[in-house]
Amino acid sequence: MSDQKNTAQQHLLQILRNEDIFQGFSDQTLEQLVQQVKYSRFHAQQHILKQQQIEQDIYILLSGTLQIGWLQNNGELIVNDYIRRQSVFNFVALLQQKPLNYDYFAATHVEVAIISGTTFLAVLQRDPQALWNVVQSLSRRMYLMFEHNRYLRTATLEQRIARHLIRLYEQYGCRQEIPLRLSQQEFAESFNISRQTLNKHLQQFVQTQVIAWNYGQIAILDLERLRQMSELDE
Amino acid sequence: MSDQKNTAQQHLLQILRNEDIFQGFSDQTLEQLVQQVKYSRFHAQQHILKQQQIEQDIYILLSGTLQIGWLQNNGELIVNDYIRRQSVFNFVALLQQKPLNYDYFAATHVEVAIISGTTFLAVLQRDPQALWNVVQSLSRRMYLMFEHNRYLRTATLEQRIARHLIRLYEQYGCRQEIPLRLSQQEFAESFNISRQTLNKHLQQFVQTQVIAWNYGQIAILDLERLRQMSELDE
Repeated sequence: MSDQKNTAQQHLLQILRNEDIFQGFSDQTLEQLVQQVKYSRFHAQQHILKQQQIEQDIYILLSGTLQIGWLQNNGELIVNDYIRRQSVFNFVALLQQKPLNYDYFAATHVEVAIISGTTFLAVLQRDPQALWNVVQSLSRRMYLMFEHNRYLRTATLEQRIARHLIRLYEQYGCRQEIPLRLSQQEFAESFNISRQTLNKHLQQFVQTQVIAWNYGQIAILDLERLRQMSELDE
Repeated sequence: MSDQKNTAQQHLLQILRNEDIFQGFSDQTLEQLVQQVKYSRFHAQQHILKQQQIEQDIYILLSGTLQIGWLQNNGELIVNDYIRRQSVFNFVALLQQKPLNYDYFAATHVEVAIISGTTFLAVLQRDPQALWNVVQSLSRRMYLMFEHNRYLRTATLEQRIARHLIRLYEQYGCRQEIPLRLSQQEFAESFNISRQTLNKHLQQFVQTQVIAWNYGQIAILDLERLRQMSELDE
């Protein structure tokens, strides 16, 4: 039992060493942080953290896929993103001690590790190396958000659709297939456009055999061409 | 001459003390930072910093309004935002030592102070108090970006138009007027919608006497109602 616990902690330590925001900490500090770790499992569709909830602990995805977005009053979830990478997922709200910006759902079976945010913040504030690393990590994420914004505002709809398809493929794809049933309605909502407009553009992707889309199942036929189509004209 | 220089430095120090990212520094450090300050003036329409340029110094807006966006190959500027607050405007790219994400133009006559980024980063890395403050500042900005994203993705077009009008008013407005000539085309581009679609929605704002829009000149007639119209239904 104790061996099992030990193996789990070693695994978690390995994840933390690879996680951006923990890079500045010494191994000793990391070991201190995982001492009081709790583990939690969620089944697909389960609500893990709720928008507007204030959460004092750090949630680290160990396995599975998260769906993040905003649950509406009518029960509909507006999906913003999927997270599959082993990483902390509530960091910004925790630093701000503010309500979560998103609803977090398990998209598959999900395991998370939960460590004390209070302990984390206390050790962080005393450690210039770790702080500098967090500054780098946050500013890198902001830089990418600025770049993403630039893309969204300057790319054509065709470029954006191509990029979205690549993104889905990178997140879920294997052997050309994106093993995820997506209605054109959901897809269109990601772009704030109507299903009709989306369909008109998708037809071009299908006719030129860049993708196939059958009953919500997408196959990427020409990834290289798709990448070219997604690039900004610079 | 030396007195003038002194007054300018005192004024700059006052700005830095009020600027988010400098809050963690001691007065002594701030005085050290402004020792080598340079000042620069730009006339309206002048290009201050270029997208893709790597800039080693910190730019602080002292007076005037900046227009930030992306200059396209065809000479068109896609406007992302306006900055009027006295603040650092190239902080994230500087922290990342990466190319600027935006083009910065003077929208009016503009004065900036320029201090050494190298000196700034060197003192920052040694100072846990200042680092913690930067972590707070960056995560606050990210939190606001997440909230903004939530708004954009969950708000109706009417809510978003109302909010955009309030924002313009808060940035430029005085006595109900937004003293800025805006074509409906420019306005529509902010929402990625056609001028026709925008116009249909704007008619409702005009007919209910919430705003008046004459020859590109906008007047806010009922700010309170506009605020209500902009709020998410929660």
